[in-house]
Amino acid sequence: MLDAIFRPRSIAVVGASRKPDTLGYKILENLVRYGFNGAVYPVNPTADAVHSIRAFPSVEAIPDPVDMAVLVVPKQHVLAAAEACGRKGVKGLVVISAGFAETGGAGVQRQAELMEIVRRHGMRLVGPNCMGVLNTAPDRSMNATFAPTMPPAGPVAFMSQSGAMGVTILDYAAEYGIGISQFISVGNKPDVSGNDLIQYWADDERTGVILMYLENFGNPRRFTQLAREITRRKPILAVKSGRSGAGARAASSHTGALAGTDAATDALLRQCGVLRMDTVEEMFDLAMAFSHQPVPRGNRVAIVTNAGGPGILIADACEAAGLHVTELAENTRALLAANFPEEASFANPVDMIASANAQSYRIAVEAVLADPNVDAVIATFVPPLGIRQEDVAEAIVSVAAGRTDKPVLAVLMGREGLPQGMAELNAAGIPAYRFPESAARALGALYRYRQWLERPVGAMAEYEVDRESVAAILAGARAEERAKLTEMEVMRVLEAYGIPVAPYRVARTVEEAAAAAQAIGWPVVMKVLSPRIIHKSDVGGVVVGVEDEDALRAAFHRLTTEVPERAGLPADAVDGVLVQRMMSGGKETILGMTQDPQFGPVLMFGLGGIYVEALRDVVFRVQPVTDVDAAEMVRGIRGIKLLEGIRGEPASDLRAVEEVIQRLSQLVGDHDAIRELDVNPWLAFPAGGVAVDGRITVAL
Amino acid sequence: MLDAIFRPRSIAVVGASRKPDTLGYKILENLVRYGFNGAVYPVNPTADAVHSIRAFPSVEAIPDPVDMAVLVVPKQHVLAAAEACGRKGVKGLVVISAGFAETGGAGVQRQAELMEIVRRHGMRLVGPNCMGVLNTAPDRSMNATFAPTMPPAGPVAFMSQSGAMGVTILDYAAEYGIGISQFISVGNKPDVSGNDLIQYWADDERTGVILMYLENFGNPRRFTQLAREITRRKPILAVKSGRSGAGARAASSHTGALAGTDAATDALLRQCGVLRMDTVEEMFDLAMAFSHQPVPRGNRVAIVTNAGGPGILIADACEAAGLHVTELAENTRALLAANFPEEASFANPVDMIASANAQSYRIAVEAVLADPNVDAVIATFVPPLGIRQEDVAEAIVSVAAGRTDKPVLAVLMGREGLPQGMAELNAAGIPAYRFPESAARALGALYRYRQWLERPVGAMAEYEVDRESVAAILAGARAEERAKLTEMEVMRVLEAYGIPVAPYRVARTVEEAAAAAQAIGWPVVMKVLSPRIIHKSDVGGVVVGVEDEDALRAAFHRLTTEVPERAGLPADAVDGVLVQRMMSGGKETILGMTQDPQFGPVLMFGLGGIYVEALRDVVFRVQPVTDVDAAEMVRGIRGIKLLEGIRGEPASDLRAVEEVIQRLSQLVGDHDAIRELDVNPWLAFPAGGVAVDGRITVAL
Repeated sequence: MLDAIFRPRSIAVVGASRKPDTLGYKILENLVRYGFNGAVYPVNPTADAVHSIRAFPSVEAIPDPVDMAVLVVPKQHVLAAAEACGRKGVKGLVVISAGFAETGGAGVQRQAELMEIVRRHGMRLVGPNCMGVLNTAPDRSMNATFAPTMPPAGPVAFMSQSGAMGVTILDYAAEYGIGISQFISVGNKPDVSGNDLIQYWADDERTGVILMYLENFGNPRRFTQLAREITRRKPILAVKSGRSGAGARAASSHTGALAGTDAATDALLRQCGVLRMDTVEEMFDLAMAFSHQPVPRGNRVAIVTNAGGPGILIADACEAAGLHVTELAENTRALLAANFPEEASFANPVDMIASANAQSYRIAVEAVLADPNVDAVIATFVPPLGIRQEDVAEAIVSVAAGRTDKPVLAVLMGREGLPQGMAELNAAGIPAYRFPESAARALGALYRYRQWLERPVGAMAEYEVDRESVAAILAGARAEERAKLTEMEVMRVLEAYGIPVAPYRVARTVEEAAAAAQAIGWPVVMKVLSPRIIHKSDVGGVVVGVEDEDALRAAFHRLTTEVPERAGLPADAVDGVLVQRMMSGGKETILGMTQDPQFGPVLMFGLGGIYVEALRDVVFRVQPVTDVDAAEMVRGIRGIKLLEGIRGEPASDLRAVEEVIQRLSQLVGDHDAIRELDVNPWLAFPAGGVAVDGRITVAL
Repeated sequence: MLDAIFRPRSIAVVGASRKPDTLGYKILENLVRYGFNGAVYPVNPTADAVHSIRAFPSVEAIPDPVDMAVLVVPKQHVLAAAEACGRKGVKGLVVISAGFAETGGAGVQRQAELMEIVRRHGMRLVGPNCMGVLNTAPDRSMNATFAPTMPPAGPVAFMSQSGAMGVTILDYAAEYGIGISQFISVGNKPDVSGNDLIQYWADDERTGVILMYLENFGNPRRFTQLAREITRRKPILAVKSGRSGAGARAASSHTGALAGTDAATDALLRQCGVLRMDTVEEMFDLAMAFSHQPVPRGNRVAIVTNAGGPGILIADACEAAGLHVTELAENTRALLAANFPEEASFANPVDMIASANAQSYRIAVEAVLADPNVDAVIATFVPPLGIRQEDVAEAIVSVAAGRTDKPVLAVLMGREGLPQGMAELNAAGIPAYRFPESAARALGALYRYRQWLERPVGAMAEYEVDRESVAAILAGARAEERAKLTEMEVMRVLEAYGIPVAPYRVARTVEEAAAAAQAIGWPVVMKVLSPRIIHKSDVGGVVVGVEDEDALRAAFHRLTTEVPERAGLPADAVDGVLVQRMMSGGKETILGMTQDPQFGPVLMFGLGGIYVEALRDVVFRVQPVTDVDAAEMVRGIRGIKLLEGIRGEPASDLRAVEEVIQRLSQLVGDHDAIRELDVNPWLAFPAGGVAVDGRITVAL
C-alpha cells in the first residue's frame, strides 16, 4: 500500500544541491551514505553531477523509471515539479518544502493544488512540510531524511507529526537503544496519514511496536476503528500534544462544559488500547521496554539491588505505576540466603548490599526470574569501588537476555562505565535506564498493555429503536430554527430509544392535569410548557412536590397565569402544563453527550446533582462505545462506591446505566443533528432507573 | 556548630589503606587529590606510609592536634578507634563502617555504645554506615568521601540518607551543572541529623539551596519548626522515599483509616514550605534551576522556539505545572514581527521557525525578557542544518545570564554539539534540559516557591481552654483502662476546648428526659448511656427524630429495658439516657486526628457522611497548625464548592471550621494521651456550626 514510499527501487531528489548545509544536499548525502539499495537520481537544472552522481535537469529527463521523488525545491516550484513527477510515472512523492497549509492563506490553496495533481496522477504524497522517510530493512535500506544520524535497525516504527521531534528521536535512538524499522515525518498529511501508517505497519513483519508523535487527528473515528484491532496484535504508543490548547468553548450543556478536548483524547486512546505517554522522555523510556521485552503475565515485580536507596525508590515508583512489589517464594529466599551475607535482605527488594559483584547479580536475577511469584524483574546497580558497570551488565544479560516470558529491565546509576554498561544491555535487548522511576514507569506500561490484551473485545449493541420519530422531531426543530428541544420532545426522543423516563402527561386544562396526576400517581412535578420560556425555574415555571388535587389546582393556575406574566408573555404563550411523576429515591447520576470538534460525539457519565457541579466526578468515552466501554465508564468514576451501596444501602442497577449509555451511543450515532445532550438526572434505582429531566440541542 | 565536620583543620583517616579498590584507600586519595587545605594523617597499624604520607599506628600517636577523624575500619574495631579519638581530643567523627543499627540485633547495641563514647567525649558523629562529607569552600576544600568524582563548587548543600544516592548525585553533578557547597551522607544519623544540617546551612553563606534525600524523619516536629522558618530564606528541596512502605495499620477511627504515612509526609513538607520532588530525576531538574535562577515574580511564561513541536510540548507542560503561557505585549509582538519572516509565529510560543540562527535567539529572548507581561522564559532549540548548539547557547547566555528578576531556562534537543551547548549554558548558570517537560517542571517549582514566599506566615492561635478538665477525663479513662471515652466524656472534652456541641442533657428518669427535651428543644435524639454497650446502633441504642413527649416516653422505655436485654446486660448496666437536640441543615463535614508513628498527631478535615466513605475527599496537616494552615486545609478539599454554596445555597461558615481545626490542634497538642479523635459530623452552618457526634480513644 505504501510501498512506493517505504520500498522504492529508485529515487529522484528534486532540488539536490551541491551546497552543504542545505536540505537538498543532506538528503542526497543520507541516501548515499546510508546505502540506499536502489538508484538515486539528483535533479538539478544547473549542475551536471551532485555528490559525484550524474544529475538531470528534470525528473522527466531521467532515462530510467523512478518510483519515488523527494521534493526539496522552493515552495513556488513544488507544483510544477509534482506535475512533472506525475507525468514521469512516479508513484510516491515526499515533499520536504514548507509554505503550504501550515502557513494559512495562499499556502492552503497551494496544498489543495498539490493534492489535485497527486490524485490526478494516482500518486501517494508524504508531506508537504516534512523531514522525509526512512527504512532500515536490509533489502530496502533507505534514509531519505535530513536527520543528522542514522538510527539502528529494530522493531519500532515511528511516525512524527513534528519534524523537530522526528529529528530528535532519530538522533537519540542509538543512545537509548531504540531500534527503528521505519520512520516517517508526515508533515501536513493531506494524503498519507497516521491511519494509513498504522494499517501498513500492522502488517509489516519487521515492525513490533508503533510509536506516534501526534499533534492532531485527521480522522479520529477511523483511527479508533483501526487501533482497536491493531493494538490486539502490536502495541501503539502515542504522545499527543496540545493538551492545553483547547481553550474555552461555548457550551450550553453540563456535558459540554465538563468535556475538554484533552478528556476526549484520553478517552479515545484508552478505548482503542493506545498507550498515551505524557512526555517525550516517557516515550523513550517506553519504546526501550516495548522494543524487546515480553509483556508480563501479571504485575508482580521483583527488584534486585546493591543499595537500599535505589531499591526503595524503585519499589515506590512500581506501586505508583500499578505494579505490585511481590513477596518472594520461600525457595527463592532460601536460595538467596545461601548465597549472600547476612546483612543482605532477601525480602523484596532483594538488597545484596555493596559487596555484590557481577556473579551476585547473576545468582539473584536468575533466582527471582525462576520464582513463580514473579512476573517481571528490575535490576539496579550503583557502582561501588572496584565493580564495573559492564561486568554487572554482562551478568544480567547472561541470565536475562532473550527471555520471552518475563521482562527484565535495568537501572544503572553511576556515571563511570555507564556507556559501556548501557551498550551491553541495549545490545541484548534489555532496556537500561539512568533513573529508578523510568524503569518502573516503563514496566507499568508493559503491564497496562497486558491488561488491554486481556480485556474483552466488547461488542456494539444494536437496539431496536424508533429512529424515524427522532429524525422527525429533530427535523421539526431545525425547520423552526429552534436549537433547543422542548421537554416533551426530549422525553419522546429518549423513549424512542428505549430509555425509561419518569411517567408524564401533558395537560391543557386543570381537569386534564388532575386526571393526569391521578393516572400517573402522586406526588407530581408540574412544569409550564412554552417554547418561549427558556429558564423556567427563574420565573417559577416548575412546581415540585405537588401532593394532592388542591395543590395541583393552585399550581396549575399559577403556571398558566402568573408565570407567563412574569416572563413578559401573554397567557396564550403557554401551551399547557407537563405533569410528571415526582420520583424519589435512587441515586442521581448524569449522562450526556457533547460534540467535540475533532472527535465527534463524546459520551459522559458521572455522579449527578451537586456531585457533578462540585466534584466534576465524570468519565468520558468517544462514541461509539461497546458494552465493555460502558461498563468501564460506570466503574471509572471516583465515587463508584456511592452506586455500589455503602452504609448498608442497596447497590444501584449499574447494568441499567450501562444500557442507557449504549442506547445514547446509538442515538447520537444515528442522528448527527444532535449537538448536545444531557440526561440529568438519571435516577439509578436498585432495579432499573429513570430519566427525570433532559436537554437536547440540535445543530442549526 | 558543625565546623568540626565541615571545616576541620586536620583529618585522621583511621583505616587508611594502600590497596586500591578499598574505601580506606579511596577516602585518603580523595582528600589528597582534591586538595584538602589542612593536614591528613593516615592511621594504619602496619604501614609506615600510605599514599606517600607518613602513617601512624593509632590516632593517639599523631603528634599534632586532630579536628576530625574518618573511621573506615571493620565494625568490630570502630568502638576502640572512637574511644581513642575521644582521648585524642578529636571533635568530629565520620564513621564510614557499616554493621550498626541498620543490621538490627547486635548492630543496634554497637551503635548505642558508639553514641555513648561520642557523648562522653563531646564529639559530633556523622554516620555510621555513611559515605562521608565534602566541602567545596576554597578556604576549607575537603573531599572526605569515597565518591568517584568531585562535584563542581556551587550553591547546593546536599544531604543524603542513602549512600548510593549520594554517590550518584555527586557523580552527575558536573554533567547536570549542579554546583555543590557542602555534601554529607548521614547514614544511620544517631547524632548529626537533617535538622542539625538545615540549621547549619541556613546560616552558611555559600549555600543558596538545600537538597535532601530522605528515607525517614528523626524528629519531624523539630524539622517542621526549623524548615518553616528556613524556607522563608532558602529553598529546601526534598525527595522522600518510602511512599508505599506504610502498609496497613490498625485504625479504629475514620481519620486513622484515611491517613497514610505518605499523606502525613506530604502534609508536613507542604506546611513548612519544603518542595517535595517525586523522582530523583526531578531532583536534578529542580536543583539546576534553583541553583542560579531567580524566583519568578509570577507564573507568566514566554516560550521561544525554532520548531512547533517542542513549543507545544513546553506549553502543555507549563500549563500542567501551574504556569500560564501568557499573551505577549503588543510592543513585543511588533518587535518580533519586524525581525522575523512572516511564517514565524509571534504569539506565545514564539516560533521563529527553522531558519532562526543565534542572532534570532538573541533578539527573541531579549524581547520577551523585556516584556512586562512575562515573568519567566523557556528557550528551546532543535538544531537544523548549519546552526550550532553552542552558538545558540552563547546567544541565550549573552542576553540572559546574570538576570536577577526573571528566570531563563533552556531546552536543547539535538545530540550534535549538545555537551558544548549544555556546558556553555551551565557555566552561565542557565539550566539546560534535554526534554521539554523537565524545564517546565523546574520552572513550575520555582513558581511554587514564590507562592510559598508570599504566603502569610500564619500564627498559632492559643485559645483559653479548660485544660484541667480534659486531663482529668483522660486520666479517669486510663485509670479504668478504658480506651474509648463515653459520649458524655467526648462532649465534655470538646466543650472544654470551646468547640460547640449539639445541646444535650443526661436523663436518669423519663421525667428528666422530658424536661431535658423541653429545655433544649424538639426534636431530639436519644442514646442509651452505658460504658458496656459499645456498638449502640446494633442493639437499637440510638433513637433519632423524637418529636414529642409520647415518642420520648416510648423511646426512654425501650432504651432502658429492651436495649440492655438485647445487649445481654442487666437493666442497671444503663446509666441513663442522653437527650440531644437533633440538628438539621448544615453541611456534614468530618474533623479528626490520628497519631502517626513518625509525625505524631495528624489533623484531618473533609466532607463528611457518604463523601468521606465514598470519595475520601480529605486533607491532612501535621499538628500544630497555624491559622493559614487551617484555612488551606478547608480550601484544599476537592468538594470545597459544596461548602462555598452552589445552586443558590448559602455558604457554610468556613471561618468556624478553621477555628475548630485550630482548637483541635491545641487540644491534641496539650494532651498526648489522645490517640485518635473524630468529630463526625461537624455540621457547618451558614453561621457557626456544631459537633453532633464524636469519638476519642486514649493511649493505655
